[in-house]
Amino acid sequence: MRKVAESTIRRLSLYLRFLEEFEGQGMATVSSESLASRGGTTSAQVRKDLSFFGSFGKRGLGYPVPELVERLRAILGLTRRYNVAMIGAGKIGSALVQYRGFRQRGFDIVAIFDVDPAKIGREWNGLTILDIATLESEFPQGGIDMAVLVTPAEAAQPLTDRLVGHGVKAILNFAPVQLVVPEDVVVKTVNLALELETLSYALASR
Amino acid sequence: MRKVAESTIRRLSLYLRFLEEFEGQGMATVSSESLASRGGTTSAQVRKDLSFFGSFGKRGLGYPVPELVERLRAILGLTRRYNVAMIGAGKIGSALVQYRGFRQRGFDIVAIFDVDPAKIGREWNGLTILDIATLESEFPQGGIDMAVLVTPAEAAQPLTDRLVGHGVKAILNFAPVQLVVPEDVVVKTVNLALELETLSYALASR
Repeated sequence: MRKVAESTIRRLSLYLRFLEEFEGQGMATVSSESLASRGGTTSAQVRKDLSFFGSFGKRGLGYPVPELVERLRAILGLTRRYNVAMIGAGKIGSALVQYRGFRQRGFDIVAIFDVDPAKIGREWNGLTILDIATLESEFPQGGIDMAVLVTPAEAAQPLTDRLVGHGVKAILNFAPVQLVVPEDVVVKTVNLALELETLSYALASR
Repeated sequence: MRKVAESTIRRLSLYLRFLEEFEGQGMATVSSESLASRGGTTSAQVRKDLSFFGSFGKRGLGYPVPELVERLRAILGLTRRYNVAMIGAGKIGSALVQYRGFRQRGFDIVAIFDVDPAKIGREWNGLTILDIATLESEFPQGGIDMAVLVTPAEAAQPLTDRLVGHGVKAILNFAPVQLVVPEDVVVKTVNLALELETLSYALASR
């Protein structure tokens, strides 16, 4: 498959959300214009984004909603569920564990790990916080599909190495470091201060 | 100024972090290679990114660290501090208010607003949660530089309209909606489930 830009993938995720709403309202077809206006983009962009993945819909008839929902779910890897481990039981971790959006999209947080004896054994959202030392014994190789890393910066790389060694292929990283991983592992780093800096840049560059 | 891609701005933010570390270690100059290896990119990319903003450094001598720090801070709008209002005192809001990374980078959370009488009046991190109805009376026009929006989806657009009407020019949005704003207002939307979908896409497209 051709390399697809992350911005395209993000728009596909948004289109899927809108299409699911349309499906819930019983709509059978939708035009690229409707999808575009809902998503704050242009119909040409919608058609271009979808064309990466084959041909959808018929000229003049719009896109068939249920079919497009199904195709986008398949493209985005959302036809299955994922077991997600939360690594780090701090403030951000606590907010994320309670975030319903993950489960709604097929991401099940199945474990929370920490290194702090004061936290280990506590219950969060029905899950007992586990000792990170037991990661490998609690979960068989392949039992965790993704990890959400919410640890201090200095702990992030060693933990990543352990996760990768244990077969984890995808990491959502909130630690303020660039993680080094083998080629077959995907990492997405979220840095909240950096998000604000894209705003301060925009304000300053006017 | 030429339109600069957001991915470039994000890399500049990272370079600045590394340069500040180097500065803390007393380094006078740094090569594009060192910056690149620290940031998981190539030296050609570093030179290209910096070239957008003029000429830095001398061939063979590397970049002067303190000068480059100063220039990047200016480019990113980080030579001043920003008053940030948190709109919504939920779980994510709670984590963000305690997040030290914001203040470290010059973003001061000066107020937290909510609509829930059970939350209004409570203290969070030294700030009293205020009634959103008092937004305009508590802060003069221009008293808030940025807002972080952590509200339910349906509340996000009406609140955005109020913030924009009150002179807020930059919004970091965690609500799962596309906000509509005038051209002179910048919005950055963070959708955490969507971040996981970029990972599931990567796993599925192998």
